[in-house]
Amino acid sequence: METPTLAEVAAQVQRLADIEEIKKLKYRYFRCFDMADLEAIAALFHPQVTLDVNGGIYRFRLEGREKFLDMVRDGAHAEMIMQHNGHHPEIDLISPTEARGVWYLQDSVWEFRRKLHITGAALYRDRYLKVGGTWLIKDVHFERIHEIVEPVVTPPNVTYAYLAQHARKLPPGELADYQKD
Amino acid sequence: METPTLAEVAAQVQRLADIEEIKKLKYRYFRCFDMADLEAIAALFHPQVTLDVNGGIYRFRLEGREKFLDMVRDGAHAEMIMQHNGHHPEIDLISPTEARGVWYLQDSVWEFRRKLHITGAALYRDRYLKVGGTWLIKDVHFERIHEIVEPVVTPPNVTYAYLAQHARKLPPGELADYQKD
Amino acid sequence: METPTLAEVAAQVQRLADIEEIKKLKYRYFRCFDMADLEAIAALFHPQVTLDVNGGIYRFRLEGREKFLDMVRDGAHAEMIMQHNGHHPEIDLISPTEARGVWYLQDSVWEFRRKLHITGAALYRDRYLKVGGTWLIKDVHFERIHEIVEPVVTPPNVTYAYLAQHARKLPPGELADYQKD
Repeated sequence: METPTLAEVAAQVQRLADIEEIKKLKYRYFRCFDMADLEAIAALFHPQVTLDVNGGIYRFRLEGREKFLDMVRDGAHAEMIMQHNGHHPEIDLISPTEARGVWYLQDSVWEFRRKLHITGAALYRDRYLKVGGTWLIKDVHFERIHEIVEPVVTPPNVTYAYLAQHARKLPPGELADYQKD
Repeated sequence: METPTLAEVAAQVQRLADIEEIKKLKYRYFRCFDMADLEAIAALFHPQVTLDVNGGIYRFRLEGREKFLDMVRDGAHAEMIMQHNGHHPEIDLISPTEARGVWYLQDSVWEFRRKLHITGAALYRDRYLKVGGTWLIKDVHFERIHEIVEPVVTPPNVTYAYLAQHARKLPPGELADYQKD
Repeated sequence: METPTLAEVAAQVQRLADIEEIKKLKYRYFRCFDMADLEAIAALFHPQVTLDVNGGIYRFRLEGREKFLDMVRDGAHAEMIMQHNGHHPEIDLISPTEARGVWYLQDSVWEFRRKLHITGAALYRDRYLKVGGTWLIKDVHFERIHEIVEPVVTPPNVTYAYLAQHARKLPPGELADYQKD
Protein backbone atom coordinates (compact mmCIF):
# COMPACT_ATOMS: atom_id res chain seq x y z
CA MET A 1 0.00 0.00 0.00
CA GLU A 2 1.34 3.38 -1.01
CA THR A 3 1.82 5.80 1.87
CA PRO A 4 -0.78 8.58 1.71
CA THR A 5 0.25 12.23 1.91
CA LEU A 6 0.39 14.10 5.18
CA ALA A 7 -2.75 16.02 4.20
CA GLU A 8 -4.60 12.76 3.55
CA VAL A 9 -3.48 11.25 6.86
CA ALA A 10 -4.40 14.45 8.71
CA ALA A 11 -7.88 14.35 7.15
CA GLN A 12 -8.41 10.72 8.16
CA VAL A 13 -7.30 11.42 11.74
CA GLN A 14 -9.68 14.36 11.87
CA ARG A 15 -12.55 12.13 10.74
CA LEU A 16 -11.79 9.63 13.52
CA ALA A 17 -11.52 12.44 16.08
CA ASP A 18 -14.86 13.82 14.86
CA ILE A 19 -16.53 10.41 15.23
CA GLU A 20 -15.22 10.16 18.80
CA GLU A 21 -16.54 13.66 19.57
CA ILE A 22 -19.97 12.83 18.17
CA LYS A 23 -20.19 9.69 20.31
CA LYS A 24 -19.31 11.74 23.40
CA LEU A 25 -21.93 14.31 22.42
CA LYS A 26 -24.69 11.68 22.36
CA TYR A 27 -23.42 9.95 25.50
CA ARG A 28 -23.47 13.28 27.34
CA TYR A 29 -27.01 13.83 26.03
CA PHE A 30 -28.25 10.55 27.52
CA ARG A 31 -26.46 11.15 30.82
CA CYS A 32 -27.85 14.68 31.17
CA PHE A 33 -31.31 13.54 30.08
CA ASP A 34 -31.54 10.84 32.75
CA MET A 35 -30.21 13.18 35.44
CA ALA A 36 -32.43 16.11 34.38
CA ASP A 37 -29.36 18.32 33.87
CA LEU A 38 -31.01 20.98 31.72
CA GLU A 39 -28.13 23.42 31.71
CA ALA A 40 -25.63 20.87 30.42
CA ILE A 41 -28.02 19.41 27.86
CA ALA A 42 -28.84 22.84 26.39
CA ALA A 43 -25.23 23.17 25.20
CA LEU A 44 -25.54 20.01 23.09
CA PHE A 45 -28.32 21.17 20.75
CA HIS A 46 -28.20 23.23 17.60
CA PRO A 47 -30.57 26.23 17.98
CA GLN A 48 -32.68 24.77 15.14
CA VAL A 49 -32.67 21.21 16.45
CA THR A 50 -35.58 19.07 15.29
CA LEU A 51 -37.08 15.96 16.86
CA ASP A 52 -39.26 13.47 15.00
CA VAL A 53 -40.59 10.63 17.15
CA ASN A 54 -42.28 7.58 15.66
CA GLY A 55 -43.32 5.64 18.71
CA GLY A 56 -45.31 3.07 16.76
CA ILE A 57 -48.62 4.01 18.38
CA TYR A 58 -47.80 7.70 18.83
CA ARG A 59 -45.99 10.29 16.74
CA PHE A 60 -44.85 13.80 17.41
CA ARG A 61 -42.41 16.38 16.14
CA LEU A 62 -40.91 19.52 17.52
CA GLU A 63 -38.49 22.15 16.34
CA GLY A 64 -36.10 24.46 18.14
CA ARG A 65 -33.88 24.18 21.17
CA GLU A 66 -36.36 25.81 23.55
CA LYS A 67 -39.12 23.36 22.68
CA PHE A 68 -36.73 20.42 23.01
CA LEU A 69 -35.62 21.68 26.40
CA ASP A 70 -39.25 22.15 27.47
CA MET A 71 -39.86 18.50 26.65
CA VAL A 72 -36.84 17.39 28.67
CA ARG A 73 -37.90 19.63 31.59
CA ASP A 74 -41.50 18.43 31.54
CA GLY A 75 -40.48 14.80 31.19
CA ALA A 76 -38.35 14.56 34.31
CA HIS A 77 -39.62 14.70 37.88
CA ALA A 78 -38.92 13.31 41.31
CA GLU A 79 -41.30 10.35 41.14
CA MET A 80 -39.62 8.48 38.34
CA ILE A 81 -36.51 6.59 37.33
CA MET A 82 -35.23 6.93 33.77
CA GLN A 83 -32.56 4.92 32.03
CA HIS A 84 -31.74 5.59 28.39
CA ASN A 85 -28.69 3.78 27.03
CA GLY A 86 -27.55 4.40 23.49
CA HIS A 87 -25.76 1.40 22.03
CA HIS A 88 -24.17 0.48 18.71
CA PRO A 89 -23.07 3.86 17.32
CA GLU A 90 -22.76 3.80 13.52
CA ILE A 91 -21.41 7.25 12.71
CA ASP A 92 -20.78 8.46 9.16
CA LEU A 93 -19.09 11.71 8.28
CA ILE A 94 -20.80 13.40 5.32
CA SER A 95 -18.42 16.36 5.28
CA PRO A 96 -15.99 17.93 7.77
CA THR A 97 -18.95 19.67 9.44
CA GLU A 98 -21.84 17.25 8.94
CA ALA A 99 -22.41 13.69 10.11
CA ARG A 100 -25.10 11.08 10.46
CA GLY A 101 -25.46 8.52 13.21
CA VAL A 102 -27.56 5.44 13.89
CA TRP A 103 -27.99 4.24 17.49
CA TYR A 104 -29.81 1.37 19.17
CA LEU A 105 -31.55 2.62 22.30
CA GLN A 106 -32.48 0.50 25.29
CA ASP A 107 -34.77 2.35 27.66
CA SER A 108 -36.55 1.78 30.94
CA VAL A 109 -38.77 4.34 32.63
CA TRP A 110 -40.54 3.89 35.95
CA GLU A 111 -43.43 6.30 36.52
CA PHE A 112 -44.40 5.77 40.13
CA ARG A 113 -47.24 8.29 40.26
CA ARG A 114 -48.82 6.87 37.12
CA LYS A 115 -47.94 3.32 38.26
CA LEU A 116 -46.31 2.37 34.96
CA HIS A 117 -43.04 0.68 33.96
CA ILE A 118 -42.19 1.27 30.33
CA THR A 119 -39.35 -0.65 28.68
CA GLY A 120 -38.29 -0.90 25.09
CA ALA A 121 -35.86 -0.36 22.30
CA ALA A 122 -35.64 2.14 19.47
CA LEU A 123 -33.44 3.31 16.64
CA TYR A 124 -32.07 6.82 16.55
CA ARG A 125 -31.13 8.30 13.17
CA ASP A 126 -29.46 11.60 13.92
CA ARG A 127 -27.79 14.39 12.00
CA TYR A 128 -25.00 16.42 13.58
CA LEU A 129 -23.45 19.73 12.56
CA LYS A 130 -20.08 21.13 13.58
CA VAL A 131 -20.50 24.82 14.42
CA GLY A 132 -17.52 26.89 15.50
CA GLY A 133 -15.50 23.75 16.14
CA THR A 134 -18.17 22.03 18.27
CA TRP A 135 -20.42 19.16 17.20
CA LEU A 136 -24.11 19.76 17.93
CA ILE A 137 -27.26 17.66 17.63
CA LYS A 138 -29.20 19.03 14.67
CA ASP A 139 -31.87 16.45 13.77
CA VAL A 140 -33.11 13.51 15.79
CA HIS A 141 -35.30 10.82 14.28
CA PHE A 142 -36.58 8.23 16.74
CA GLU A 143 -38.24 4.97 15.65
CA ARG A 144 -39.58 2.41 18.10
CA ILE A 145 -38.48 -1.22 17.72
CA HIS A 146 -40.59 -2.37 20.62
CA GLU A 147 -42.32 -1.01 23.69
CA ILE A 148 -43.84 -2.78 26.69
CA VAL A 149 -45.97 -0.84 29.17
CA GLU A 150 -46.63 -2.69 32.40
CA PRO A 151 -48.78 -1.60 35.33
CA VAL A 152 -46.89 -1.33 38.60
CA VAL A 153 -49.07 -3.24 41.03
CA THR A 154 -46.55 -3.53 43.85
CA PRO A 155 -44.03 -0.67 43.81
CA PRO A 156 -40.44 -1.90 43.52
CA ASN A 157 -38.10 -1.52 46.49
CA VAL A 158 -36.14 1.54 45.30
CA THR A 159 -33.20 2.00 47.67
CA TYR A 160 -31.90 5.07 45.83
CA ALA A 161 -33.05 7.31 42.99
CA TYR A 162 -31.09 10.36 41.88
CA LEU A 163 -34.16 12.12 40.43
CA ALA A 164 -36.04 11.77 43.73
CA GLN A 165 -33.36 14.00 45.26
CA HIS A 166 -32.61 16.32 42.35
CA ALA A 167 -35.62 16.70 40.04
CA ARG A 168 -38.69 18.89 40.37
CA LYS A 169 -41.40 17.73 42.76
CA LEU A 170 -44.79 16.86 41.30
CA PRO A 171 -47.67 18.79 42.87
CA PRO A 172 -50.16 16.49 44.60
CA GLY A 173 -52.58 14.79 42.27
CA GLU A 174 -50.94 15.93 39.02
CA LEU A 175 -50.73 13.35 36.27
CA ALA A 176 -47.75 13.63 33.98
CA ASP A 177 -48.95 13.64 30.40
CA TYR A 178 -45.61 13.75 28.64
CA GLN A 179 -44.69 11.30 25.95
CA LYS A 180 -41.58 9.49 27.10
CA ASP A 181 -38.66 9.64 24.67
CA MET B 1 9.03 10.99 22.27
CA GLU B 2 10.52 10.89 18.79
CA THR B 3 8.09 11.72 16.00
CA PRO B 4 7.27 8.61 13.96
CA THR B 5 7.54 8.59 10.19
CA LEU B 6 4.60 9.43 7.96
CA ALA B 7 4.32 5.76 6.98
CA GLU B 8 4.14 4.75 10.65
CA VAL B 9 1.52 7.35 11.44
CA ALA B 10 -0.49 6.36 8.37
CA ALA B 11 -0.41 2.73 9.48
CA GLN B 12 -1.59 3.60 12.99
CA VAL B 13 -4.45 5.71 11.63
CA GLN B 14 -5.45 2.86 9.35
CA ARG B 15 -5.56 0.48 12.33
CA LEU B 16 -7.87 2.84 14.22
CA ALA B 17 -10.08 3.28 11.15
CA ASP B 18 -10.23 -0.50 10.78
CA ILE B 19 -11.26 -0.94 14.42
CA GLU B 20 -14.05 1.60 13.92
CA GLU B 21 -15.22 -0.22 10.78
CA ILE B 22 -15.27 -3.56 12.59
CA LYS B 23 -17.39 -2.13 15.41
CA LYS B 24 -19.84 -0.76 12.86
CA LEU B 25 -19.92 -4.14 11.13
CA LYS B 26 -20.97 -5.91 14.33
CA TYR B 27 -23.42 -3.15 15.32
CA ARG B 28 -25.07 -3.42 11.92
CA TYR B 29 -25.24 -7.19 12.39
CA PHE B 30 -27.15 -6.88 15.69
CA ARG B 31 -29.47 -4.23 14.29
CA CYS B 32 -30.29 -6.27 11.18
CA PHE B 33 -30.63 -9.45 13.24
CA ASP B 34 -33.23 -7.94 15.58
CA MET B 35 -35.15 -6.40 12.70
CA ALA B 36 -34.98 -9.55 10.53
CA ASP B 37 -33.31 -7.61 7.72
CA LEU B 38 -31.91 -10.59 5.81
CA GLU B 39 -30.76 -8.68 2.76
CA ALA B 40 -28.64 -6.26 4.77
CA ILE B 41 -27.23 -8.94 7.05
CA ALA B 42 -26.13 -11.12 4.13
CA ALA B 43 -23.65 -8.44 3.06
CA LEU B 44 -21.87 -8.65 6.43
CA PHE B 45 -20.76 -12.29 6.25
CA HIS B 46 -17.78 -13.89 4.62
CA PRO B 47 -19.00 -16.68 2.28
CA GLN B 48 -17.23 -19.22 4.52
CA VAL B 49 -18.49 -17.75 7.80
CA THR B 50 -18.56 -20.21 10.71
CA LEU B 51 -20.65 -20.12 13.87
CA ASP B 52 -19.80 -22.06 17.03
CA VAL B 53 -22.37 -21.68 19.81
CA ASN B 54 -21.68 -22.92 23.33
CA GLY B 55 -24.93 -22.19 25.10
CA GLY B 56 -23.96 -23.99 28.30
CA ILE B 57 -26.72 -26.59 27.99
CA TYR B 58 -26.76 -26.68 24.19
CA ARG B 59 -24.07 -26.55 21.52
CA PHE B 60 -24.21 -26.22 17.78
CA ARG B 61 -22.04 -25.23 14.84
CA LEU B 62 -22.69 -24.24 11.29
CA GLU B 63 -20.62 -23.23 8.31
CA GLY B 64 -21.32 -21.08 5.30
CA ARG B 65 -23.27 -17.91 4.68
CA GLU B 66 -26.39 -19.66 3.41
CA LYS B 67 -26.69 -21.78 6.55
CA PHE B 68 -26.11 -18.74 8.77
CA LEU B 69 -28.80 -16.83 6.88
CA ASP B 70 -31.18 -19.80 7.17
CA MET B 71 -30.72 -19.66 10.94
CA VAL B 72 -31.42 -15.92 11.04
CA ARG B 73 -34.48 -16.40 8.79
CA ASP B 74 -35.88 -19.30 10.83
CA GLY B 75 -35.21 -17.55 14.11
CA ALA B 76 -37.25 -14.43 13.45
CA HIS B 77 -41.03 -14.28 13.21
CA ALA B 78 -43.95 -12.02 13.97
CA GLU B 79 -44.76 -13.40 17.42
CA MET B 80 -41.55 -12.43 19.14
CA ILE B 81 -39.44 -9.54 20.34
CA MET B 82 -35.65 -9.81 20.12
CA GLN B 83 -33.06 -7.53 21.61
CA HIS B 84 -29.36 -8.32 21.19
CA ASN B 85 -26.96 -5.62 22.36
CA GLY B 86 -23.24 -6.08 21.89
CA HIS B 87 -21.26 -4.21 24.53
CA HIS B 88 -17.60 -3.78 25.43
CA PRO B 89 -15.84 -4.23 22.08
CA GLU B 90 -12.21 -5.34 22.50
CA ILE B 91 -10.89 -5.35 18.94
CA ASP B 92 -7.34 -6.43 18.05
CA LEU B 93 -5.83 -6.13 14.61
CA ILE B 94 -3.73 -9.19 13.74
CA SER B 95 -2.74 -7.90 10.32
CA PRO B 96 -4.05 -5.25 7.93
CA THR B 97 -6.71 -7.73 6.78
CA GLU B 98 -7.40 -9.84 9.87
CA ALA B 99 -8.78 -8.94 13.29
CA ARG B 100 -10.17 -10.50 16.43
CA GLY B 101 -12.91 -9.11 18.64
CA VAL B 102 -14.38 -9.90 22.04
CA TRP B 103 -17.89 -8.63 22.89
CA TYR B 104 -20.18 -8.87 25.88
CA LEU B 105 -23.73 -9.60 24.73
CA GLN B 106 -26.88 -8.76 26.64
CA ASP B 107 -29.92 -10.42 25.13
CA SER B 108 -33.63 -10.62 25.74
CA VAL B 109 -36.03 -12.68 23.61
CA TRP B 110 -39.77 -12.89 24.08
CA GLU B 111 -41.37 -15.92 22.39
CA PHE B 112 -45.09 -15.30 22.71
CA ARG B 113 -46.28 -18.46 20.96
CA ARG B 114 -44.01 -20.64 23.08
CA LYS B 115 -44.78 -18.48 26.15
CA LEU B 116 -41.10 -17.98 27.07
CA HIS B 117 -38.96 -15.00 28.00
CA ILE B 118 -35.25 -15.73 27.65
CA THR B 119 -32.67 -13.30 29.02
CA GLY B 120 -28.96 -13.62 29.45
CA ALA B 121 -25.44 -12.63 28.65
CA ALA B 122 -22.70 -14.15 26.52
CA LEU B 123 -19.22 -13.55 25.19
CA TYR B 124 -18.56 -13.32 21.49
CA ARG B 125 -15.07 -14.11 20.25
CA ASP B 126 -15.06 -13.24 16.57
CA ARG B 127 -12.60 -13.22 13.70
CA TYR B 128 -12.93 -10.70 10.89
CA LEU B 129 -11.34 -10.58 7.44
CA LYS B 130 -10.96 -7.59 5.15
CA VAL B 131 -11.84 -8.65 1.61
CA GLY B 132 -11.64 -6.16 -1.24
CA GLY B 133 -11.51 -3.29 1.23
CA THR B 134 -14.52 -4.41 3.27
CA TRP B 135 -14.45 -6.04 6.71
CA LEU B 136 -16.55 -9.20 6.94
CA ILE B 137 -17.52 -11.54 9.77
CA LYS B 138 -15.54 -14.75 9.26
CA ASP B 139 -15.76 -16.76 12.51
CA VAL B 140 -18.16 -16.33 15.39
CA HIS B 141 -17.67 -18.10 18.69
CA PHE B 142 -20.46 -17.63 21.22
CA GLU B 143 -20.14 -18.63 24.87
CA ARG B 144 -22.96 -18.23 27.38
CA ILE B 145 -22.24 -16.41 30.65
CA HIS B 146 -25.75 -16.91 31.92
CA GLU B 147 -29.23 -17.69 30.68
CA ILE B 148 -32.62 -17.46 32.39
CA VAL B 149 -35.70 -18.96 30.75
CA GLU B 150 -38.94 -17.86 32.31
CA PRO B 151 -42.48 -19.00 31.43
CA VAL B 152 -44.75 -16.17 30.33
CA VAL B 153 -47.85 -16.71 32.41
CA THR B 154 -49.50 -13.34 31.75
CA PRO B 155 -48.44 -11.88 28.39
CA PRO B 156 -46.80 -8.47 28.75
CA ASN B 157 -48.62 -5.39 27.46
CA VAL B 158 -46.73 -4.90 24.18
CA THR B 159 -47.76 -1.55 22.74
CA TYR B 160 -45.52 -1.89 19.68
CA ALA B 161 -43.31 -4.57 18.14
CA TYR B 162 -41.48 -4.06 14.85
CA LEU B 163 -41.31 -7.79 14.08
CA ALA B 164 -45.08 -8.14 14.49
CA GLN B 165 -45.42 -5.82 11.51
CA HIS B 166 -42.42 -6.84 9.43
CA ALA B 167 -41.45 -10.47 10.06
CA ARG B 168 -42.92 -13.68 8.66
CA LYS B 169 -46.18 -14.87 10.17
CA LEU B 170 -46.18 -18.21 11.98
CA PRO B 171 -48.70 -20.70 10.64
CA PRO B 172 -51.31 -21.66 13.23
CA GLY B 173 -50.11 -24.24 15.71
CA GLU B 174 -46.47 -24.27 14.62
CA LEU B 175 -43.88 -24.39 17.37
CA ALA B 176 -40.63 -22.62 16.64
CA ASP B 177 -37.77 -25.01 17.33
CA TYR B 178 -34.88 -22.69 16.58
CA GLN B 179 -32.01 -22.27 18.97
CA LYS B 180 -31.96 -18.67 19.99
CA ASP B 181 -28.62 -16.92 19.50
CA MET C 1 -7.88 24.19 6.85
CA GLU C 2 -4.09 24.31 7.03
CA THR C 3 -2.43 20.91 7.14
CA PRO C 4 -0.93 20.25 10.57
CA THR C 5 2.66 19.09 10.94
CA LEU C 6 3.60 15.44 11.12
CA ALA C 7 4.33 15.82 14.84
CA GLU C 8 0.85 17.28 15.42
CA VAL C 9 -0.84 14.53 13.45
CA ALA C 10 1.20 11.88 15.25
CA ALA C 11 0.14 13.33 18.61
CA GLN C 12 -3.54 13.34 17.63
CA VAL C 13 -3.35 9.73 16.44
CA GLN C 14 -1.67 8.77 19.70
CA ARG C 15 -4.50 10.40 21.66
CA LEU C 16 -7.11 8.42 19.73
CA ALA C 17 -5.12 5.20 20.20
CA ASP C 18 -4.90 5.94 23.93
CA ILE C 19 -8.66 6.49 24.17
CA GLU C 20 -9.23 3.14 22.45
CA GLU C 21 -6.83 1.43 24.87
CA ILE C 22 -8.56 2.96 27.89
CA LYS C 23 -11.94 1.73 26.66
CA LYS C 24 -10.53 -1.77 26.25
CA LEU C 25 -9.03 -1.57 29.74
CA LYS C 26 -12.41 -0.84 31.32
CA TYR C 27 -14.23 -3.39 29.14
CA ARG C 28 -11.74 -6.05 30.20
CA TYR C 29 -12.30 -5.00 33.81
CA PHE C 30 -16.06 -5.57 33.58
CA ARG C 31 -15.62 -8.87 31.75
CA CYS C 32 -13.11 -10.19 34.30
CA PHE C 33 -15.20 -8.88 37.20
CA ASP C 34 -18.34 -10.73 36.10
CA MET C 35 -16.39 -13.93 35.42
CA ALA C 36 -14.40 -13.72 38.68
CA ASP C 37 -11.12 -13.79 36.72
CA LEU C 38 -8.86 -12.46 39.48
CA GLU C 39 -5.58 -13.06 37.71
CA ALA C 40 -6.58 -11.10 34.63
CA ILE C 41 -8.17 -8.27 36.59
CA ALA C 42 -5.07 -7.78 38.79
CA ALA C 43 -3.10 -6.70 35.72
CA LEU C 44 -5.51 -3.81 35.09
CA PHE C 45 -4.98 -1.92 38.35
CA HIS C 46 -2.32 0.56 39.37
CA PRO C 47 -0.68 -0.63 42.62
CA GLN C 48 -2.11 2.46 44.37
CA VAL C 49 -5.60 2.14 42.88
CA THR C 50 -8.34 3.81 44.92
CA LEU C 51 -12.07 3.10 44.97
CA ASP C 52 -14.68 5.54 46.27
CA VAL C 53 -18.25 4.20 46.19
CA ASN C 54 -21.24 6.43 46.81
CA GLY C 55 -24.12 4.00 46.70
CA GLY C 56 -26.70 6.53 47.82
CA ILE C 57 -27.53 4.66 51.01
CA TYR C 58 -24.04 3.25 51.58
CA ARG C 59 -20.55 4.61 51.10
CA PHE C 60 -17.13 3.02 51.27
CA ARG C 61 -13.58 3.60 50.12
CA LEU C 62 -10.55 1.44 49.75
CA GLU C 63 -6.97 1.91 48.61
CA GLY C 64 -4.44 -0.40 47.07
CA ARG C 65 -4.57 -3.22 44.56
CA GLU C 66 -4.64 -5.98 47.15
CA LYS C 67 -7.68 -4.53 48.90
CA PHE C 68 -9.46 -4.01 45.57
CA LEU C 69 -8.73 -7.61 44.60
CA ASP C 70 -9.98 -8.81 48.00
CA MET C 71 -13.25 -7.05 47.32
CA VAL C 72 -13.57 -8.65 43.89
CA ARG C 73 -12.68 -12.06 45.35
CA ASP C 74 -15.15 -11.77 48.24
CA GLY C 75 -17.89 -10.44 46.01
CA ALA C 76 -18.03 -13.35 43.56
CA HIS C 77 -19.27 -16.83 44.36
CA ALA C 78 -21.06 -19.76 42.82
CA GLU C 79 -24.59 -18.83 43.93
CA MET C 80 -24.91 -15.60 42.02
CA ILE C 81 -25.16 -14.05 38.57
CA MET C 82 -23.49 -10.70 37.94
CA GLN C 83 -23.83 -8.45 34.94
CA HIS C 84 -22.03 -5.13 34.85
CA ASN C 85 -22.14 -3.28 31.54
CA GLY C 86 -20.27 -0.01 31.13
CA HIS C 87 -21.89 2.23 28.55
CA HIS C 88 -21.30 5.68 27.13
CA PRO C 89 -17.52 6.14 27.53
CA GLU C 90 -16.54 9.81 27.68
CA ILE C 91 -12.74 9.68 27.79
CA ASP C 92 -10.57 12.79 28.08
CA LEU C 93 -6.81 12.79 27.83
CA ILE C 94 -5.23 15.16 30.37
CA SER C 95 -1.69 14.44 29.28
CA PRO C 96 0.05 11.66 27.32
CA THR C 97 0.04 9.53 30.50
CA GLU C 98 -3.11 10.63 32.34
CA ALA C 99 -6.77 10.45 31.41
CA ARG C 100 -10.23 10.77 32.87
CA GLY C 101 -13.31 8.80 31.94
CA VAL C 102 -17.03 8.95 32.67
CA TRP C 103 -19.14 5.80 32.19
CA TYR C 104 -22.80 4.93 32.61
CA LEU C 105 -23.12 1.56 34.31
CA GLN C 106 -26.10 -0.77 34.04
CA ASP C 107 -25.90 -3.60 36.56
CA SER C 108 -27.91 -6.61 37.59
CA VAL C 109 -26.89 -8.98 40.38
CA TRP C 110 -28.79 -12.07 41.44
CA GLU C 111 -27.89 -13.30 44.95
CA PHE C 112 -29.61 -16.66 45.20
CA ARG C 113 -28.50 -17.52 48.74
CA ARG C 114 -29.61 -14.13 50.04
CA LYS C 115 -32.72 -14.26 47.79
CA LEU C 116 -32.12 -10.79 46.32
CA HIS C 117 -32.13 -9.33 42.83
CA ILE C 118 -30.37 -5.99 42.67
CA THR C 119 -30.59 -3.83 39.55
CA GLY C 120 -29.55 -0.29 38.91
CA ALA C 121 -27.43 2.29 37.18
CA ALA C 122 -24.45 4.34 38.24
CA LEU C 123 -21.86 6.79 36.97
CA TYR C 124 -18.18 5.95 37.02
CA ARG C 125 -15.69 8.81 37.09
CA ASP C 126 -12.28 7.22 36.67
CA ARG C 127 -8.70 8.35 36.40
CA TYR C 128 -6.20 6.33 34.39
CA LEU C 129 -2.40 6.45 34.29
CA LYS C 130 -0.09 5.12 31.60
CA VAL C 131 2.81 3.33 33.23
CA GLY C 132 5.56 1.78 31.12
CA GLY C 133 3.38 2.03 28.03
CA THR C 134 0.31 0.41 29.60
CA TRP C 135 -2.85 2.17 30.75
CA LEU C 136 -3.93 1.24 34.28
CA ILE C 137 -6.95 2.06 36.45
CA LYS C 138 -5.76 4.50 39.10
CA ASP C 139 -8.87 6.04 40.71
CA VAL C 140 -12.45 4.85 40.54
CA HIS C 141 -15.33 6.99 41.73
CA PHE C 142 -18.72 5.31 41.66
CA GLU C 143 -21.99 7.22 42.11
CA ARG C 144 -25.39 5.53 42.12
CA ILE C 145 -28.11 6.88 39.82
CA HIS C 146 -30.65 4.37 41.01
CA GLU C 147 -30.86 1.02 42.73
CA ILE C 148 -33.74 -1.42 43.14
CA VAL C 149 -33.45 -4.36 45.53
CA GLU C 150 -36.13 -6.97 45.07
CA PRO C 151 -36.70 -10.12 47.11
CA VAL C 152 -36.53 -13.31 45.08
CA VAL C 153 -39.66 -15.18 46.11
CA THR C 154 -39.64 -17.78 43.35
CA PRO C 155 -36.10 -18.46 42.07
CA PRO C 156 -35.75 -17.80 38.34
CA ASN C 157 -35.21 -20.73 35.97
CA VAL C 158 -31.44 -20.38 35.44
CA THR C 159 -30.46 -22.73 32.63
CA TYR C 160 -26.78 -21.77 32.77
CA ALA C 161 -24.55 -19.66 34.99
CA TYR C 162 -20.81 -19.38 34.44
CA LEU C 163 -20.08 -18.51 38.09
CA ALA C 164 -21.93 -21.61 39.29
CA GLN C 165 -19.27 -23.65 37.49
CA HIS C 166 -16.21 -21.46 37.99
CA ALA C 167 -16.48 -19.39 41.18
CA ARG C 168 -15.78 -20.35 44.79
CA LYS C 169 -18.46 -22.38 46.55
CA LEU C 170 -20.19 -20.80 49.53
CA PRO C 171 -19.98 -22.87 52.70
CA PRO C 172 -23.39 -23.97 53.96
CA GLY C 173 -25.24 -21.29 55.86
CA GLU C 174 -22.82 -18.45 55.13
CA LEU C 175 -24.34 -15.11 54.31
CA ALA C 176 -22.38 -12.96 51.91
CA ASP C 177 -21.95 -9.51 53.42
CA TYR C 178 -20.10 -7.84 50.58
CA GLN C 179 -21.23 -4.55 49.13
CA LYS C 180 -22.05 -5.13 45.51
CA ASP C 181 -20.30 -2.82 43.09
